[in-house]
Amino acid sequence: MIFRQNLIEFKKTPYINAFAAIGGQKEGEGPLGTYFDSISKDSRFGTESWEKGECKLQEETVLTALKKVKISPEKVDLLLCGDLINQCTASAYCARNLGIPYAGMYNACASMAEGMIFSSILVSSGMMDFVACAASSHFCTAERQYRYPLEYGGQRAPSAQWTATACGAALFSREKSAVSVQRVFFGRVIDYGITDLTNMGGAMAPAAADTLCRYFAQTKTKPQDYDVIVTGDLGKIGSNLLSQLLQKEDISLLDRHLDCGLLLYDDWQDVHAGGSGCGCCASVLCSYLLPQMEKGKWKNVLFLATGALMSPMSVQQGESIPCISHLLHLRTEN
Amino acid sequence: MIFRQNLIEFKKTPYINAFAAIGGQKEGEGPLGTYFDSISKDSRFGTESWEKGECKLQEETVLTALKKVKISPEKVDLLLCGDLINQCTASAYCARNLGIPYAGMYNACASMAEGMIFSSILVSSGMMDFVACAASSHFCTAERQYRYPLEYGGQRAPSAQWTATACGAALFSREKSAVSVQRVFFGRVIDYGITDLTNMGGAMAPAAADTLCRYFAQTKTKPQDYDVIVTGDLGKIGSNLLSQLLQKEDISLLDRHLDCGLLLYDDWQDVHAGGSGCGCCASVLCSYLLPQMEKGKWKNVLFLATGALMSPMSVQQGESIPCISHLLHLRTEN
Repeated sequence: MIFRQNLIEFKKTPYINAFAAIGGQKEGEGPLGTYFDSISKDSRFGTESWEKGECKLQEETVLTALKKVKISPEKVDLLLCGDLINQCTASAYCARNLGIPYAGMYNACASMAEGMIFSSILVSSGMMDFVACAASSHFCTAERQYRYPLEYGGQRAPSAQWTATACGAALFSREKSAVSVQRVFFGRVIDYGITDLTNMGGAMAPAAADTLCRYFAQTKTKPQDYDVIVTGDLGKIGSNLLSQLLQKEDISLLDRHLDCGLLLYDDWQDVHAGGSGCGCCASVLCSYLLPQMEKGKWKNVLFLATGALMSPMSVQQGESIPCISHLLHLRTEN
Repeated sequence: MIFRQNLIEFKKTPYINAFAAIGGQKEGEGPLGTYFDSISKDSRFGTESWEKGECKLQEETVLTALKKVKISPEKVDLLLCGDLINQCTASAYCARNLGIPYAGMYNACASMAEGMIFSSILVSSGMMDFVACAASSHFCTAERQYRYPLEYGGQRAPSAQWTATACGAALFSREKSAVSVQRVFFGRVIDYGITDLTNMGGAMAPAAADTLCRYFAQTKTKPQDYDVIVTGDLGKIGSNLLSQLLQKEDISLLDRHLDCGLLLYDDWQDVHAGGSGCGCCASVLCSYLLPQMEKGKWKNVLFLATGALMSPMSVQQGESIPCISHLLHLRTEN
C-alpha cells in the first residue's frame, strides 16, 4: 500500500537565479516601494485598458528578471503564469508576446507558489534547464470582475483587502545561486463554509493552517526550525485566525510570522485588512523577501501563498469559498 | 550556451493506469455514446445549477477512473484539473469534495493535455506515485459565460462548434499498464490575428500546426511514424486549415489525422463545425482512443489538445484570439 507522499524533498536542488517585481503607484508609496524594480504611475501601464496593462506589467516583470542574468526569452524552456482576470488572459497574452512555451496556472492568489513549485520540479528533475514563472494582479481589473465597477464607487468593508497592482517573476534552474528550493508541498482545498466575499483572509486562514500542520507533521520540523514563515495575503483578520487555528494544534509561529498582505501597505494607505491578489505575495517575495535572503537576513524561509478559489457566480449560487495554500521551503547559504 | 529543450523524452516511463469519461445526453446520442462510462440525461447532474452540475460531473469522472484500479482518493498524491468556468470553479469544488491535494490548470481546451503532461512529469521523476488529472466542459455553463444566456436563443454561426458536456479523467503512475507516455511537448501561444469568437477551429489550427512542426523537427520523426495523430477540437474548419498550414511545411498527415471535435458528434446532431470544450478531447481520449489503444488498434499515437485562450472581455477590447496546443506521444505494447 502506498500512502500519499505529496511532500517533495529535492535530491537535485533547484535554484532561483533571478527575480523581479513591478508595482503600481500605491505599491510604490508603501513601505516596500523602494524595493521594487520599478513602479508605474500609469495604472494602464502605457496601454489603453487595465486588462491590457496587466498583461504589459507581467511581460515587463518577466523580462526584467531575465535581463538580470542575461537570459533571453529564447533560452527559457517554459513559462508558468497566473492571474485573476477571467480565463487568465493577462498570462496568455504575456506568453504570446514573449514567445516562450507556456502552461497556465490557476490557483487564485496561490498561483505564484504553484508556478514556483512546478518550476522547481521541472528543473530539479533535469527535464528542463530554465523555467520562469510569474503571477500578477491589478486592483482595477479585479474590482471590475469580482466586485463592482470602480465607477460605482462602492464602499469597501472593514474586512476587505486591497488587490495589489503588482507582479513578481522568478527564473529557476539547477545553476547554483543564493536562494535554493529545498522542499515543496501542495495544499488541499479547505472550505470552512465562509460565504462573505469581503473577508478573503478569514476564508483562506484554514487552508494555510492545514498546509502548515501537515507540512510540520510530514517533515517532523517545527516553526523554530525556520527563521521566518511568510504567508501569502491573509491580512489582519486572516493572520489572527491562522494563529488561533494553529494554537488548537499546539503550534505557535511565535514572532516568526510575516504576511505579505501586511507587508505591502502602510496603515495610512487605507487598505483596510491588508493587501491581496496573485501579485501581492509574488511581488513581496521578489522585491523584498528574496533580496533579504540573499543578504543573509534569513537562512530558512517557509513561503506559503494562499488562494480563494471562488468566482462571483459560485458565491451567487450559494457556494462557500474554497481555499488552498501551497508551500515552499527556501534556503540560502549566505 | 543552452538552447531551449522543451521536448521531454521520459527515461522512466509514466503509464496511464486508469481512465474514465462521462458525458451528457447529446454526447450519449453521438457515435461514441456507447463508449462512455456513463451518460447523464440530467444536464444539472443531480444538482441545482449547471455550474454545480459540472463540478459533480468532474468529481464522478475522477472517482470512476480511480475505482477501476481500486485506488482511493486518499492514495492520490495530486489532482490536476481544468475547466472553462470563470476562475475554474468546477475544478476547485471538485478538488474540495475529493480532498486530494490540488493544482489548478488553465489552458482552455488544451487543459487535459496540460494536466496529462504534468502528471507524467511528476510520476516519471519519482517525485509522486499517483497523480490524477481531469478536464471538463459543459455546453450550458460555457454558453452563459462566453456567449449568450441560453434563454436568449441566439443563432449559432455555421463556423461555431458545440461545447461538449463531458469530462475525461486519467490516473498516472510508474506501474506498468497498457498505455505509456513516451514524450511530452509544451506548445507556444500562437495568434494569427483572428477575432471571430464563432470560429475557434480556425483560430486554433495555427497553434496545432506550430506544435506539430516543432515536434517533428525536434524528434526527427514524421507523420508516418505514428499510427494516428489526434487533434483536440479543431472541427471541420480547423482541421482543413491545419492540413493547409502543414502542406506549406511539406508535411502531410495523410489518412492518419483524427480530430476529437469531429469524432464526438454525428452530422445529424446539428453541432455545425464540430465539438469543442475542455471536455471534448478529454472525453474522446478517455472513452474511445485509450480503449482502442489497449485493444491494439493503434500502437503509436500523437495526442494534441488545442486551446483558445481569449475571454469575452479580451475580445471586446479588440484583442485577437491567442491559442495553444500541447502534445503527448502515447504508446502501447499490446
